[in-house]
Amino acid sequence: MKNESAVQLTNRVRKEFASLDEAKWRRRTGLFPAEGTKCVLELAAVFRPRSVYATEEWIAEHGAAIEGVEVCRVQARDLRELTRLSSTPPVIAAFELPEAPQLPDRSYFSENLTLMLDRVQDPGNLGTILRTCDWMGVRNIIASEDTVDCFNPKVVQATMGGLARTKVVYTNLPALLDTLDKSVAVCGTFLDGENIYTAALPDSGVLIMGNEGKGISDEVANAVNRRLLIPSYPGTDKVESLNVAVATAIALSQFRMRLFGQ
Amino acid sequence: MKNESAVQLTNRVRKEFASLDEAKWRRRTGLFPAEGTKCVLELAAVFRPRSVYATEEWIAEHGAAIEGVEVCRVQARDLRELTRLSSTPPVIAAFELPEAPQLPDRSYFSENLTLMLDRVQDPGNLGTILRTCDWMGVRNIIASEDTVDCFNPKVVQATMGGLARTKVVYTNLPALLDTLDKSVAVCGTFLDGENIYTAALPDSGVLIMGNEGKGISDEVANAVNRRLLIPSYPGTDKVESLNVAVATAIALSQFRMRLFGQ
Repeated sequence: MKNESAVQLTNRVRKEFASLDEAKWRRRTGLFPAEGTKCVLELAAVFRPRSVYATEEWIAEHGAAIEGVEVCRVQARDLRELTRLSSTPPVIAAFELPEAPQLPDRSYFSENLTLMLDRVQDPGNLGTILRTCDWMGVRNIIASEDTVDCFNPKVVQATMGGLARTKVVYTNLPALLDTLDKSVAVCGTFLDGENIYTAALPDSGVLIMGNEGKGISDEVANAVNRRLLIPSYPGTDKVESLNVAVATAIALSQFRMRLFGQ
Repeated sequence: MKNESAVQLTNRVRKEFASLDEAKWRRRTGLFPAEGTKCVLELAAVFRPRSVYATEEWIAEHGAAIEGVEVCRVQARDLRELTRLSSTPPVIAAFELPEAPQLPDRSYFSENLTLMLDRVQDPGNLGTILRTCDWMGVRNIIASEDTVDCFNPKVVQATMGGLARTKVVYTNLPALLDTLDKSVAVCGTFLDGENIYTAALPDSGVLIMGNEGKGISDEVANAVNRRLLIPSYPGTDKVESLNVAVATAIALSQFRMRLFGQ
């Protein structure tokens, strides 16, 4: 990595970066964007950077961690024009989209905890869910084909680098669920489910979380063999609901807390 | 509520609505905005609407639930110009800011679970936290003076109406903590804390959650007498972290699950 004098961003670079907001352009260019030190460094450990723009200070401190591409030194005002964030980060990068990961073997579902997402639409929610999976040691996330793209810039930012350590496979959920061994616990949260705080939860299996407004679709719900409920505080009324990323986190923590002897 | 012919939004109305994004203008006008059926109806049960703009269909179905002000019938394209959301809602309203709520009595903290927020900055996070408090039966949230304003439109939207049932008091946290009885459990999450999944948690007390990047400030941390940890999956490394709204939800669920016999 050489430290040349600052380059000026061309309009073409600006347009290319902005176009990566759209899934269509990410597919065409084979690139996705990421911003900020934590996100860029963690993704650079796993994905191949195609272009990296950073301030002189950032390059001095972190430039050596970027391999395979020269980091372009730019002014903070150039980054301000590129950024999608409210405060300008010292580094913005475009990474090569990885090949779509393969579905795990069927035996995987009997031995591990897997999260399935049925039509999650909000990129902030998906990003927060992936960040939580990273913390909870859930490495495979299977998403319905109409779930938001995990390389959407808002997803990437909300994962805080967690995208580097979690795999998201997009597939037809009912078809996949149909192939699973009948002994696999397929869990979902429903208003008439068993209290997740007192239920005897399995060590492995599938947890399905549904769309923000509509929950789990009927076709997917048909495959659920463990209906669970995250109960609200006694006496609260029916108007409350939980954000899907919050509900996912509470459910995953209930599956994982047994590892710690409770 | 009369059903007159559709009004046309003036530029002044548009500008006034847009100005409510800023805390300064919310204070000057004494108003805050809310959008969408769920949010508007739940807030209208508690706060006083000053102006409500809705489609003819919305008025036919829900107009009777709005008291004290005439609902203005507008075209969907007018709402599209007013909205802050990515998909246009059928109703947008401005409500009167309530008077700042009072701090609970000191005895309250010995008998209830209270959430304190130390410099939470992201409006989406605060909104999600208030929505979770609504679900978890946590009615009083005490926030540091530099926590994001709970009437910020992004907060209001993320609460999904929960703002109608939770009170947020802004105050100097170290000064308040200093007045609490020494027997009150003051809990916070730290990397060197006790595993929250196995700790014997109190029924009441204070849970403090900190800033997105920096955690709990030293001054507030000094008042913590129960240091807790949400452990990550064994074997994961140190780069992961949890979103503050997710960490709050997991911690609150651990306090509340004992109500259900675990």
